[in-house]
Amino acid sequence: MATDNLTAVLYGIEDIRLKQDNLTAVLYGIEDIRMEQRPIPEIEDHEVLLEMDCVGICGSDVHYLVHGRIGDFVVEKPMIIGHESSGVVAKLGKNVTNLKVGDRVAIEPGFGCRTCDFCKTGRYNLCEKMIFCATPPVNGNLMKFYKHPADFCFKLPPNVTMEEAAVLEPLSVGVHACRRAGVGLGSEVLILGAGPIGLVTLMTAKAMGAGKVLITDMVEGKLEIAKSLGATYTMLVKKDMTEESLVKQVHEIMGSAPDKAIDCCGGESTSRLAILATRSGGSVAIVGMAQAESKLPVTNAIVREINIHGVFRYCNDYASALAMVASGAVNVKKLITHHYDITETEKAFETARYGHGGAIKVMIHCQPRDKNNPKPFDS
Amino acid sequence: MATDNLTAVLYGIEDIRLKQDNLTAVLYGIEDIRMEQRPIPEIEDHEVLLEMDCVGICGSDVHYLVHGRIGDFVVEKPMIIGHESSGVVAKLGKNVTNLKVGDRVAIEPGFGCRTCDFCKTGRYNLCEKMIFCATPPVNGNLMKFYKHPADFCFKLPPNVTMEEAAVLEPLSVGVHACRRAGVGLGSEVLILGAGPIGLVTLMTAKAMGAGKVLITDMVEGKLEIAKSLGATYTMLVKKDMTEESLVKQVHEIMGSAPDKAIDCCGGESTSRLAILATRSGGSVAIVGMAQAESKLPVTNAIVREINIHGVFRYCNDYASALAMVASGAVNVKKLITHHYDITETEKAFETARYGHGGAIKVMIHCQPRDKNNPKPFDS
Amino acid sequence: MATDNLTAVLYGIEDIRLKQDNLTAVLYGIEDIRMEQRPIPEIEDHEVLLEMDCVGICGSDVHYLVHGRIGDFVVEKPMIIGHESSGVVAKLGKNVTNLKVGDRVAIEPGFGCRTCDFCKTGRYNLCEKMIFCATPPVNGNLMKFYKHPADFCFKLPPNVTMEEAAVLEPLSVGVHACRRAGVGLGSEVLILGAGPIGLVTLMTAKAMGAGKVLITDMVEGKLEIAKSLGATYTMLVKKDMTEESLVKQVHEIMGSAPDKAIDCCGGESTSRLAILATRSGGSVAIVGMAQAESKLPVTNAIVREINIHGVFRYCNDYASALAMVASGAVNVKKLITHHYDITETEKAFETARYGHGGAIKVMIHCQPRDKNNPKPFDS
Amino acid sequence: MATDNLTAVLYGIEDIRLKQDNLTAVLYGIEDIRMEQRPIPEIEDHEVLLEMDCVGICGSDVHYLVHGRIGDFVVEKPMIIGHESSGVVAKLGKNVTNLKVGDRVAIEPGFGCRTCDFCKTGRYNLCEKMIFCATPPVNGNLMKFYKHPADFCFKLPPNVTMEEAAVLEPLSVGVHACRRAGVGLGSEVLILGAGPIGLVTLMTAKAMGAGKVLITDMVEGKLEIAKSLGATYTMLVKKDMTEESLVKQVHEIMGSAPDKAIDCCGGESTSRLAILATRSGGSVAIVGMAQAESKLPVTNAIVREINIHGVFRYCNDYASALAMVASGAVNVKKLITHHYDITETEKAFETARYGHGGAIKVMIHCQPRDKNNPKPFDS
Repeated sequence: MATDNLTAVLYGIEDIRLKQDNLTAVLYGIEDIRMEQRPIPEIEDHEVLLEMDCVGICGSDVHYLVHGRIGDFVVEKPMIIGHESSGVVAKLGKNVTNLKVGDRVAIEPGFGCRTCDFCKTGRYNLCEKMIFCATPPVNGNLMKFYKHPADFCFKLPPNVTMEEAAVLEPLSVGVHACRRAGVGLGSEVLILGAGPIGLVTLMTAKAMGAGKVLITDMVEGKLEIAKSLGATYTMLVKKDMTEESLVKQVHEIMGSAPDKAIDCCGGESTSRLAILATRSGGSVAIVGMAQAESKLPVTNAIVREINIHGVFRYCNDYASALAMVASGAVNVKKLITHHYDITETEKAFETARYGHGGAIKVMIHCQPRDKNNPKPFDS
Repeated sequence: MATDNLTAVLYGIEDIRLKQDNLTAVLYGIEDIRMEQRPIPEIEDHEVLLEMDCVGICGSDVHYLVHGRIGDFVVEKPMIIGHESSGVVAKLGKNVTNLKVGDRVAIEPGFGCRTCDFCKTGRYNLCEKMIFCATPPVNGNLMKFYKHPADFCFKLPPNVTMEEAAVLEPLSVGVHACRRAGVGLGSEVLILGAGPIGLVTLMTAKAMGAGKVLITDMVEGKLEIAKSLGATYTMLVKKDMTEESLVKQVHEIMGSAPDKAIDCCGGESTSRLAILATRSGGSVAIVGMAQAESKLPVTNAIVREINIHGVFRYCNDYASALAMVASGAVNVKKLITHHYDITETEKAFETARYGHGGAIKVMIHCQPRDKNNPKPFDS
Repeated sequence: MATDNLTAVLYGIEDIRLKQDNLTAVLYGIEDIRMEQRPIPEIEDHEVLLEMDCVGICGSDVHYLVHGRIGDFVVEKPMIIGHESSGVVAKLGKNVTNLKVGDRVAIEPGFGCRTCDFCKTGRYNLCEKMIFCATPPVNGNLMKFYKHPADFCFKLPPNVTMEEAAVLEPLSVGVHACRRAGVGLGSEVLILGAGPIGLVTLMTAKAMGAGKVLITDMVEGKLEIAKSLGATYTMLVKKDMTEESLVKQVHEIMGSAPDKAIDCCGGESTSRLAILATRSGGSVAIVGMAQAESKLPVTNAIVREINIHGVFRYCNDYASALAMVASGAVNVKKLITHHYDITETEKAFETARYGHGGAIKVMIHCQPRDKNNPKPFDS
Repeated sequence: MATDNLTAVLYGIEDIRLKQDNLTAVLYGIEDIRMEQRPIPEIEDHEVLLEMDCVGICGSDVHYLVHGRIGDFVVEKPMIIGHESSGVVAKLGKNVTNLKVGDRVAIEPGFGCRTCDFCKTGRYNLCEKMIFCATPPVNGNLMKFYKHPADFCFKLPPNVTMEEAAVLEPLSVGVHACRRAGVGLGSEVLILGAGPIGLVTLMTAKAMGAGKVLITDMVEGKLEIAKSLGATYTMLVKKDMTEESLVKQVHEIMGSAPDKAIDCCGGESTSRLAILATRSGGSVAIVGMAQAESKLPVTNAIVREINIHGVFRYCNDYASALAMVASGAVNVKKLITHHYDITETEKAFETARYGHGGAIKVMIHCQPRDKNNPKPFDS
C-alpha cells in the first residue's frame, strides 16, 4: 500500500488501487450483457494500465450479443465486450519507455506471440496465438480500467479526440484492406458495400490518392453517406440485376474497369462482381465474410491475371490510421453518430443493433465526454 | 530479283526467295492437318525471317486438332499450327540491331500492341491485341520459313540446342507461374499436377531455390518422372480421398504447410486443395484451366490472408528461362522424349495425343537433326 | 474561321495543311531563341497532329538558353524548345483508336523504342533510344502544330484546364520521385529543396497520404509557398549550419526521423542530409543533379540499411498525375504564376530565368487563353 | 563420462547442473583471449540451454582480438567471443514449444526487443536494442553451455552437420545481401570481393537461380576458390587498372552489364565500380564496410535509376540458409578448411588470422568431432 501510494505520488495521479470503480460490460451469453465491477488489473513489466475513455461498438460485438458466436468463435464463458477503444495511461510497467502516465492513447486491440514466424516477419495478424480483445475466450475492454502491452498503445497528438482514437480500429481495417489491394495514387477503386467497413475503406482509398472510387450498396441511404464522405460515384444494386449488367454498369460509371476492387460484403455475388469488373492484372481484396464458400469465375481470373487477396483485421496499420486522422486527411467524426455513457451500455447496443437514428458508429464513454479532449469533440 | 540476289550476297547466304520449299503444317479443322507449301513471308523493318528448326507439340495444339477450339478460340479458317519453336535468322529487317543473320534463336511466340497500358507497364501478356502463334485466328509457325519481330527472338549461346530452345516456351510458363506465386529461396512449394506444366514448374521452383517441392498427381508414372526431375516429395492422389485427408497428408509429407501452391490442373478440387493446404499469408497461383468456375473456401482464404494469383502464359520470362537452361540449372532434355521430321507431322501429333511410348514432349524438326547444334542433342 | 469550322466538321487533311501558321520557338544557341515558321508535320499511322495550346517553361529550357548544354547534352544545331505542354487533337493517324479529333490532351514528352528490355518491362524512361522533347538533338514543341505518338497523349476531363495539363509534366516528376521513394499512407517525408520539383513532390506526397512533410530550403520565400501548398513543416537551412545540427533539427521538428527523404537539389550536402536524417530501413530518392559526384556516408547507410534510389524523369506516371489534378487532390493552379502569348516567348523566358514577380511556373500560350478550357483558368 | 551418459539418457536438469565444465573463451582485450570456467547459465521461460557444439571464427572475432574494437563497438570489459555456432538443446524454458531436449540446432546469434517498430514490421536487424553475440558489450558463445531464445534456434534435419549449422551464420549474410539486391532467376550478378562473404554471396546467388555470376578479387587464389564454388566468371583486379577499364572489362566478360552488383568489400573503389558497372534500373547492395565515407558517382546513378541498398547482418534469413544447405543446393563444407578443439582456441584464431594453410573458415569444436552428427562431417 505504501508503495502504491508512493507510485501514485511519483506519477502524479490518485492512487489507482484505491479507486474501486472498475465498471465493466460483460457478455454472459446471447442477449445477456451485464454491468459489473471487476478488479483493477495488475500490470506486467511491458504493459500499461489504462483508464479507458471511449469504446465504439463493432458489428462483431452486436453479433456476439445476438448469436453468441461468430463462426468457430463461441462465447462459452462470460466475456468482457468491446475492442474499438481509447484511454489514458494510468500506470507504467517498469520496462515501458514509449509512453508516460497521462498520455492519451488509441489501443490496438490484438497482439501476437512475438516469437512465431508470422510475428517475426511482421505479419502478427496471422499469429496462431493472437490475443484479440473480445474474441472468445479473450476479454475485451469496455470497462473503466484495462491493461495492455505498451507497444500496442499509440499516443495521440492534441488535435485527435478520444472518440476518433477509438475509431482508429475500424479505420485500420480500411487501411489494411487498401494496402492488401495495393491502392495508390491514381487507383480506380470499386468498393462493394457501404457499411462501416466500406466507408472507412472509401475514406482510406481517397487519402491514399485514389483517382476515382465507386461504392455500391443495396441501400440508397448508405450511398448518400458515402457520397458525403468523398465517393466519386455511387451505384445502387438491386436484387434483380444480372451479373453482366452490373459489370457493364460499373465500367460505364467509372469510364473504364477499376484496377482495384474491395469486397466489404464477402458474399458470392459481390466477390464475383469484384473479380469480373476488375481490370486485367488488377487486384481484388476480400474483407467481408458473408459466405464461407463461393462459386467464383476462376478461368476469367486466370486469363486476366487477377490477384485475389484475403484481408484479416490489420497489422502495423494503426500508426498510419492515426496519421491519416491527425493530418486531417480524413474526418472520421462524421462516422460517429451516437454517444452513450458506459452506464447506458445496453441502450447503446440497441442503437447499434437496429441502426436507430441512422446510426453508423455508436460510441460508449467510460469517462465524462471531452474529459480527455484538449478540444471538445463537437467543436 | 537482282535486289534479292544482292541481299543474299550481302547477308552471305543463299537467295532465300529462290528457295521454294516452305513446307507448312496447316490445321483445316478437326482431325484435319495438311502439309502444304506456303510463300516465304516478306519481312517488315522490325522483323526477321527465320529458317525454322524445332517445333514442340503443345497440349493446346492437340486440343485444336481434336476439338477445333479452346474456349472462345475457334479454328474457323485454316491455321498454321505450332508455337514452341526455334530457328535460325535468315534475313534482317532494316531496323533490327539485336540479331544478325545466322543467329540461332528461341522464338517467344506472342507479342503485344506496344502502345496500350499493359504493354507500356511491362505486362504485355494481358494486351487485348496480343498476337499469339497458333491461337485462332493467328497462324503458328510449324513451317520451314517464318517471320517474327526481332525483339521476341532470343539468341542462343553455343551450349543450348535448338530442341532446348523450343522447350523454353513451356518452361517460360513455369517461370511465370513461379514468379506469380513468389517462389524464392527456401520456399516450400506444393505443385498440383505432374503434366508438362507441372514438371516445368517443378524444375523452375528448384532452380529458384525452393527448399522443398511436393508434387501431386493421380498417375504414379508421372510422379516417378517428377521425382527424377528433382521433386523432394511426391503424393499420389486417389479419387476417394477426402479434402481434409489430402490437406493433412500434404502437411505431414512436407513437415509443415507449404508457403506457395501452384495449381497446374485448375479443377475445383485442386484449387481448393491449394488454398486449404497453403500456410497463412502464403500464395496460390492457378495456371491450369480445367474448370471455368469453382466453389472456393473464401472465408478460409480471408482469415488466413491467402493470395490467389491468376497466371496467363508469360511475360518477360523467356530470357530467364534461357538463362536457366544455359547455366545448367535445369536439364530440359529429359522432357524431350520423341523426335519427328516435319514430314512426319501427323505421326508426331499421334504420339503426343496418345502419349505413346511415355511421351512427355514431342519435337518436330524442320531441319535435319543437329544441323544447327554446335554439339549434338544426344551428346 | 471558316476553315476552322470546316476542320471541325470534316477533320480534313487539306484544311490543316492550308493553315500556314506554325510559329515555332527555336533555340539556335546560347541566348539565341528565334521565332520562326516551320512546316506543319506529316503524321505517321500511330501519331496524332496536335494544335498546341500551353507550354510551360522548365528550368532545363532556361539552362539550354543560358548555357547551351546540360551535361553531355549539347545544343549543336537549332532545336525547338519546350516540353511541358498540352494541345488539341487536330488529326489522327490511321491506327489511332484511343483519341478523336478535338480531344484536349496533356502531352507526355518522351517515349522509348518499344522493343528494348527497358521498354518491354515497363521502364521506358531508361530506354537508350529515348526520344525526349527539347533534349538535344530532339526537337521540343513550343510551336503551333506538333505531332506525337497517340499513346503518349492523355485525354483531359472537362474540369482540367490546358494550363494544368501542361503542368502534368513537372508533376509527373514529383509522382515518379514519390513512387521511387515509396511514399505512402502515413509516410513521414523530408523534402530537400522547395523549387518547382520540390513543390510538386510535396503536393504529390500529401496526395499519397503522407502523414507529415518537412520541406527545406535556403530561401524563406520558397518555404512560405511550400507552407501554403500543404507542407506540415518547413525548415530554413543556413550556410553555416553543421550537418549534425541539421540532422538533429529535422528530427526535432518532425518528432522522429523521416522514413522517406527526397533530395530535389542533388548537392553533396543535401544528399548527405537525406541519408543521415532518414530512419533506419528508410528510403532516399535523389532527383536533383547539382553535383556529378558526392562524398556520402556509406557505412552509416549500410548499418542502417538505407535504400538510395536514383530518379530520372518519369515512367507510366502521367495518368496518375492527371488523376490527381482531375480529382482535386492537388491544386496546381497555384504554381502557375505568369502567362505569356507564344509571340512573347523571349519575355516569358526572361521572367522564368530571373524569377521576376515571384515566378514559379511561367506558361506560354500558343492559343488565345481559355480557348480550349470548358471553364476559364481563373475561375 | 558416466555423467555424460546419464545426461544423454535422462536429459535431466540436475545432471547439467552437476556438470562443472563450462569452458569459455573470453576476450580480455587486445591479443588477450583466456580460457576460463563460467557458470552454466539459468534459462528464462522462452529460452533453451544449449550444449554448444561448433563455433566458427568470423573476421569480426579476429578484428576484436587484434584491434579491441570495430568502429564504435569497443571491448571495454571481458567479453565471451564467438557467434557462428550450433549446439544441442539441453534444457527447455517452460514456454518453449518449438524444440525438445536433444534437438540439434543452428543458433541465430542476434535478436531484437520484439516491441519496437522494426521488430514488429519484420526488420529486427535494425532494432536499436539488438542483442547480438560477441558485439560489445554482449557476450558471445564460444563455450560449453550457453542459453538462447528458443525461437532463434533452428532445428537441423539429420543430413545437416553441426559444422554446416555453424556456417549458416555467414551464409545468412549472403542470403540477406542477395535478397536486398533482389537477386532472382536469371539475374546477372557482379560480386566484388571473394573473401568469405563474397563466397557465401556467390553460392546464394547461384542457388537463387542467377544466370551468370562474375566475382572479382585482387588475389588470384581466392578467385580459384570462387570458380570451384560455381562462379561463372572471375576477374582479377589490379591496382593500376582505371575505373573505366574495369567497367568495360566487367561488361565484356559478362556479355552485358549485370543487373545486380554486391559489394562485399565496401571500399570507395568497389562501391564506385558496382554503381558504374550495373545496368540502368539495376540494384547495388553494399555489405562490406571498408570505408566510412566514399565519393560516389551520384548523377550517373540518378540518370540510370540505380538502387543502392545498405545490407546489415540478416533478418529472417536463417531458415532459408538452412533450407539451402539441407536441400543440397549449396555445399558449404568446402568453406570449412580447419578444425580445432575448444582447448586449442588460440591456435584456431592464429590460423584464421593469418590464413594459414589457405584457411577460409576455421571451426572450433566444443564437443568431440561428429559426436552430434548422424553422418560424419567428412563422409
